Amino acid sequence: MTGPALEGIIAYPVTPFTPGENGGENGGGGDGGVDTEALTALVDRLIDAGCHAIAPLGSTGESAYLDDQEWYTAAEAALAAVAGRVPTVVGVADLTTRGAVRRARFAERAGADAVMVLPQAYWKLDEREVTGHFTAVADAVTVPVMLYNNPATSGVDLSPELMVSLVERVENITMVKESSGDVRRMHRLARLTDGALPFYNGSNPLALAAFAAGAAGWCTAAPCLIPGPVLELHRAVRAGEWDLAREVFQRQLPVLEFILGGGLPTTVKAGLALLGLEVGGPRRPLLPLDPAGTARLAELLAAAG
Amino acid sequence: MTGPALEGIIAYPVTPFTPGENGGENGGGGDGGVDTEALTALVDRLIDAGCHAIAPLGSTGESAYLDDQEWYTAAEAALAAVAGRVPTVVGVADLTTRGAVRRARFAERAGADAVMVLPQAYWKLDEREVTGHFTAVADAVTVPVMLYNNPATSGVDLSPELMVSLVERVENITMVKESSGDVRRMHRLARLTDGALPFYNGSNPLALAAFAAGAAGWCTAAPCLIPGPVLELHRAVRAGEWDLAREVFQRQLPVLEFILGGGLPTTVKAGLALLGLEVGGPRRPLLPLDPAGTARLAELLAAAG
Amino acid sequence: MTGPALEGIIAYPVTPFTPGENGGENGGGGDGGVDTEALTALVDRLIDAGCHAIAPLGSTGESAYLDDQEWYTAAEAALAAVAGRVPTVVGVADLTTRGAVRRARFAERAGADAVMVLPQAYWKLDEREVTGHFTAVADAVTVPVMLYNNPATSGVDLSPELMVSLVERVENITMVKESSGDVRRMHRLARLTDGALPFYNGSNPLALAAFAAGAAGWCTAAPCLIPGPVLELHRAVRAGEWDLAREVFQRQLPVLEFILGGGLPTTVKAGLALLGLEVGGPRRPLLPLDPAGTARLAELLAAAG
Amino acid sequence: MTGPALEGIIAYPVTPFTPGENGGENGGGGDGGVDTEALTALVDRLIDAGCHAIAPLGSTGESAYLDDQEWYTAAEAALAAVAGRVPTVVGVADLTTRGAVRRARFAERAGADAVMVLPQAYWKLDEREVTGHFTAVADAVTVPVMLYNNPATSGVDLSPELMVSLVERVENITMVKESSGDVRRMHRLARLTDGALPFYNGSNPLALAAFAAGAAGWCTAAPCLIPGPVLELHRAVRAGEWDLAREVFQRQLPVLEFILGGGLPTTVKAGLALLGLEVGGPRRPLLPLDPAGTARLAELLAAAG
Repeated sequence: MTGPALEGIIAYPVTPFTPGENGGENGGGGDGGVDTEALTALVDRLIDAGCHAIAPLGSTGESAYLDDQEWYTAAEAALAAVAGRVPTVVGVADLTTRGAVRRARFAERAGADAVMVLPQAYWKLDEREVTGHFTAVADAVTVPVMLYNNPATSGVDLSPELMVSLVERVENITMVKESSGDVRRMHRLARLTDGALPFYNGSNPLALAAFAAGAAGWCTAAPCLIPGPVLELHRAVRAGEWDLAREVFQRQLPVLEFILGGGLPTTVKAGLALLGLEVGGPRRPLLPLDPAGTARLAELLAAAG
Repeated sequence: MTGPALEGIIAYPVTPFTPGENGGENGGGGDGGVDTEALTALVDRLIDAGCHAIAPLGSTGESAYLDDQEWYTAAEAALAAVAGRVPTVVGVADLTTRGAVRRARFAERAGADAVMVLPQAYWKLDEREVTGHFTAVADAVTVPVMLYNNPATSGVDLSPELMVSLVERVENITMVKESSGDVRRMHRLARLTDGALPFYNGSNPLALAAFAAGAAGWCTAAPCLIPGPVLELHRAVRAGEWDLAREVFQRQLPVLEFILGGGLPTTVKAGLALLGLEVGGPRRPLLPLDPAGTARLAELLAAAG
Repeated sequence: MTGPALEGIIAYPVTPFTPGENGGENGGGGDGGVDTEALTALVDRLIDAGCHAIAPLGSTGESAYLDDQEWYTAAEAALAAVAGRVPTVVGVADLTTRGAVRRARFAERAGADAVMVLPQAYWKLDEREVTGHFTAVADAVTVPVMLYNNPATSGVDLSPELMVSLVERVENITMVKESSGDVRRMHRLARLTDGALPFYNGSNPLALAAFAAGAAGWCTAAPCLIPGPVLELHRAVRAGEWDLAREVFQRQLPVLEFILGGGLPTTVKAGLALLGLEVGGPRRPLLPLDPAGTARLAELLAAAG
Repeated sequence: MTGPALEGIIAYPVTPFTPGENGGENGGGGDGGVDTEALTALVDRLIDAGCHAIAPLGSTGESAYLDDQEWYTAAEAALAAVAGRVPTVVGVADLTTRGAVRRARFAERAGADAVMVLPQAYWKLDEREVTGHFTAVADAVTVPVMLYNNPATSGVDLSPELMVSLVERVENITMVKESSGDVRRMHRLARLTDGALPFYNGSNPLALAAFAAGAAGWCTAAPCLIPGPVLELHRAVRAGEWDLAREVFQRQLPVLEFILGGGLPTTVKAGLALLGLEVGGPRRPLLPLDPAGTARLAELLAAAG
């Protein structure tokens, strides 16, 4: 990346949708188009709160459920809203390599500081295929590429060894985001590279353990709902105040577990509505959080605040 | 379905691709468009061999890797090639419900006798969401819908109980394809419906066990390569010649295991080239079968023939 | 084995316990000693019903929960009760190799026709260790050894390839019992040995699929409760009456699934009490089936009868 | 516990064996009896190095492979060797509840400060059965009981919720050892009890993450081989020197991963021989570390020292 390396709290906004024709039918919709106005408002909130970077179109951003045109609209709107105030990392995931290349190129042209690439598997991919995918996307852009391991959503589990070999072989692959939920993977990444590879935690319930393991940052949608506690955790860790960090983490953990357990787009969109920012429901087959879940989330947000 | 119920060997053609601009680069390509001529030739072969139904755009047909326009082209070409000679079942899988609805409607208009619907998960889907997805697709068409359970590729595991409840609640959901690889699921489907629900086996290595369990048919790409043994197995089973069936099955099992283990589009496309029908490689990130694998496949085909 | 190979229904009796001092306390006990009288009565029932072989001290026989002296008592009593009327296979499982050797030797001296050996893992065993264990036990006796793969209870999963290599290398290892619940393993065993290796199914819900795959027999505790249907299934299969076999199997499947799901010692002991043979409860930490489960089992037995 | 709570590095000695009759045969033996002299020497080493507590007869101590008499001998020898210099926790694991009760009572009479109880499953245990097992053992002694969750070796996975409910219901169940390898379990334990329940980490590669999560101690066999680095990690953590702690942890991590991956009794015994303390091999079916593994371990020990 030009400029300083990515560090700290990397915030993942949802992609808001306008109600659409069938909006009412399913208690929330998601069949409308991208609501760029709400997206802009959300990005502003995240930056105003102090987040260190913005990452639109991640898993939380329902990237997988958008057609190309919608994806372009969301990418442009998010990057325009950031307007260079903090670094940006745009999520790129597609079942085909050519689709991922197309989106990565678009993101670069639109001004992204980096792209985060998740290989998606319908048919099981072997190492040769995963390597071909990442290499093709990295070759198509000049911005830095962050490898993203998230077996639960992508269906591909990238071993630390494979990721390190990609970092070593491809010049602009320079970062790793680990969302497998296993902190031992992070220690292995550190060990395999003598601590030289910046890695980022993408599993909310591992936030404290990941910082202890030396993570450069935390990729999270939680700042959409509880930016204060999330930033306070990071501050305490960086200040070496680990007892405070643990206390701050324990207090926000119920929210972190809840939003992950219920699916991030579903729960974070419900939470944003509770906080007064209307962003629509998730796109079907995802359904809006049900009333009992919404009531529970309201309680948890109140307790964490 | 209008007419008799689906029965026997339901053959899954691959979707052939033209070489495309980058075809040479990656030893086989897959970046060109749909090769309708080769698709027509393949469908003819399958029907001439005696297959009882044709199912284009299944997992083997790389449905997940096609854009809408390509998908429409493949669906139309396959249905035109069949020309009513045998029943057709068109595979419908999309990460979004609206995409699945769009494709199902297209298939019906293009003359499909039935659609096979696979829910695809990026975010984990709960029962409410799976039910909503299937119901929306079924409501959008009048042809019969086959529920398709294939947790390994779709990321969603549909329990026999959930599938039976969908069959009971939605009028045109009338069949189940089981590809979990666990024959106990089939026995449970039979037990839960007193044998009234036609179920189809989609796991090649389970073919014999599934027929023993009462499967109405076998959904398989194997007839692309070894139609004779596949049809002979079915004939022996229906004639009650189980010792012969076991022998015929054992002889073809190495091919069945190989094509499944290596990924069906990858291996079946390589096998078709070996048999003289050029269909291009699979679409990237999938890569063509490597030379060692191709040599092994040639041996297995020779031994099974 | 001297004499004809093992074939058909191999019945697994439970090991009955006398009430013991603390019997009343926990609603059923299991802390008393081996009730040889009830064991003899149970063996008689199984043979009278027509079972083709008796296998005491399997998983169902709570072999893992007996001390050496109790185990010897149960082995002797069961073999004496059989009195050569049908072949016998005695289950041998111990965490240590020396314990397994000791029990296998005892079984041979007491007249067992064969021993069935399950490696039990506390620490994960590699192939070298598993091979050493089986070889040591086989070398210690002259009777045939049946390899027993049951990863769910033993913690070791024996691949078909490993088992076949053991059969090839060790003269008196001559049979395999497969309880992984995956019928594909059986087809692989058949394929790897050109059908020459007798294999036996140990997973009740796979009974029909296993016979279709060519299993020489079915190792099961179900004859303790429903000997008629179990034997009728075998008869129909051997007569080539597969439609009848499927019907007979479907009717007994609810019982098979229930007794497996609830733990065989627990449920079979409860069922025997329902049928008028008092055999005590299972040994703690196992607890007797609760009243709701017992009521459900009574219904299922009535329906299967 | 009487006196201060258990804290810090809780060291797990192996159980040394004398060569035995067949010692030479299998390259290391394990068929001899307990070598109390070597056990005493090992305990002395661990205490001299500064370990805060000693826990004989854990998984590392091959507790599962000892008969009762050997187990008693090892327990007595270890407790005598400690001679009250540091607290002791004796591991109690048995497939039967009565066996676990017998061993726990013996440990208490022999002077153990606490017992650590691992439920072992042959048949899957439900919550009622697990609860019955722990309650019976706890009721049989007056010393504090540490619940031990180690699904990989025991076959039972204890949820944080179940463990907390046992702590709440049974007076002398006062501590938890977590070896599932998932740090999120520890955070949940802390959250469910507002930090009041002392929990201990039993997964070596999680040592740093566990301390960050608030673990009261680390239960580990590593001090048998690298006491210095293990104690230095603990010191740095308690001093709040997290950067140093991370560095110290990274340096010892290759040893931690190696000894866990190869099985603790196997690798730790090989390592002790390398360090000049002859403790025999593990008991069969476990086999001594092979020469290549031993050479690798020697390198890793040299690098970590």
